Amino acid sequence: MSTDSPRSTPVHRRNIKLVLAYEGTDFAGWQRQRNASTVQQVLEEAIEQVTGERVSVVGSGRTDAGVHALGQVANFHSSSSLPVGELQRALNALLPPTVVVLKAAEVASDFHARYRATGKHYRYRLHNASLRPVFDRHLVLHLRARLNLTRMRRAARALVGEHDFAAFTTHAREEPNTVRRIEELTIHRRGERVLVDIKGSGFLYQMVRAIVGTLVEVGRGKLPAQAVGEILASGDRGRAGPTAPAHGLCLVSVRYPEDVSDLGDGACARGRMKGKGR
Amino acid sequence: MSTDSPRSTPVHRRNIKLVLAYEGTDFAGWQRQRNASTVQQVLEEAIEQVTGERVSVVGSGRTDAGVHALGQVANFHSSSSLPVGELQRALNALLPPTVVVLKAAEVASDFHARYRATGKHYRYRLHNASLRPVFDRHLVLHLRARLNLTRMRRAARALVGEHDFAAFTTHAREEPNTVRRIEELTIHRRGERVLVDIKGSGFLYQMVRAIVGTLVEVGRGKLPAQAVGEILASGDRGRAGPTAPAHGLCLVSVRYPEDVSDLGDGACARGRMKGKGR
Repeated sequence: MSTDSPRSTPVHRRNIKLVLAYEGTDFAGWQRQRNASTVQQVLEEAIEQVTGERVSVVGSGRTDAGVHALGQVANFHSSSSLPVGELQRALNALLPPTVVVLKAAEVASDFHARYRATGKHYRYRLHNASLRPVFDRHLVLHLRARLNLTRMRRAARALVGEHDFAAFTTHAREEPNTVRRIEELTIHRRGERVLVDIKGSGFLYQMVRAIVGTLVEVGRGKLPAQAVGEILASGDRGRAGPTAPAHGLCLVSVRYPEDVSDLGDGACARGRMKGKGR
Repeated sequence: MSTDSPRSTPVHRRNIKLVLAYEGTDFAGWQRQRNASTVQQVLEEAIEQVTGERVSVVGSGRTDAGVHALGQVANFHSSSSLPVGELQRALNALLPPTVVVLKAAEVASDFHARYRATGKHYRYRLHNASLRPVFDRHLVLHLRARLNLTRMRRAARALVGEHDFAAFTTHAREEPNTVRRIEELTIHRRGERVLVDIKGSGFLYQMVRAIVGTLVEVGRGKLPAQAVGEILASGDRGRAGPTAPAHGLCLVSVRYPEDVSDLGDGACARGRMKGKGR
């Protein structure tokens, strides 16, 4: 049934790295679950169809239900000898229209999509206009009240750097270490859109959404800009703003040290993090 | 039941013009039908909820099932005294998330969204890349083979001007007059996208989609560019290319003579036709 029977002859297992884009709307997130469709599951099923192997796909991290990805990174081990270009085409032919493999490459055996990741870039998209968005309503959070970006940027400054982000995560108690480093937090208005870009060494559970929910409170004038630094220092999730809805969030890219990154930039390059290899 | 009972006292009936955007994916087109959701129907139902009146909404034309609109124009007559801004907000609160009223304005009593229209701008979006689009797959037609735009533009030249477009419509026999004027037909590549913009005095049933289907055959090298002029002259639908799928098509804007256009440009201004009032 589902047991992986050990092979009698040891075979060379290649390590395959994938870069993926997906629309999270209809998925119960990245991680495999019972009775719900997840990105990991549809990928593992497609890989089994192509290679005949039941594999475990490791993602750089779990995206929540409804969160999108422009450049999620994953890896799995396979004894298939299929060239990576053919593997990519075969997977794309089997995957649902909401998931696409942007790149596939063979990498060193010690590459691990989660443990080797040194940084991530998330983007949160706000539609800040009186009329609702029609065509990409599944990708943006609609906010009618005009946001004050000057205040939001002032508040954001308190978050950049290495801090204990216990006040900005949902399950701080389950996390042994709530210290993370935010390398960059920028907020731009582009027409009716406000884009919040956050780059950091790693993120706690729902941390980006808690930060965005809090910055939106500042932008609406419901919270003073200087309060954000105080909330951070307090470590009290109850003082920060609400968790912004999942559908505005997108994992833009994942950063790895230069030596494992044998993948060039591709379709997903827009807005990608420059790999500075910290 | 559904009878319009004549009022005992004659009341002033205002003529309300609406500019609408909608995603056509889940609609069986513009026109009201039995047992299928249409844009006209959801609009008429919303207007009835707001004003208490059963009205007939006139669209500038019927968009097919699956076709989108950035700037469809419609009008209806109402004895409601609700200010147009309030009417717009009330309709937007009741309409499904796939439809939005971009503008509402009171216009002269003789304005008619279909009969007064002097031109339309349609855009067809192609995603011309080896990998499929994920996030806006409902708005673009995916074509893997690289299109030759030089050839497509050469072919397009034969279509510009006043011609009998019988070869580019699905029901030519039901149409007493198949002569139409294409004012402009441009083809641009923007990254992985190819945009086909067609502006004209009016269009026959599925004419834009037949033109795009034919130009795509030229772009793929399956039809020589000079064949398009010959197909046009033949009046034979069987010689033109296939009807391109609905989901790549969008009605960008509708043009009216200056005197009825008391609406400024709005959210939908991107790519709008300049009203030259022919």
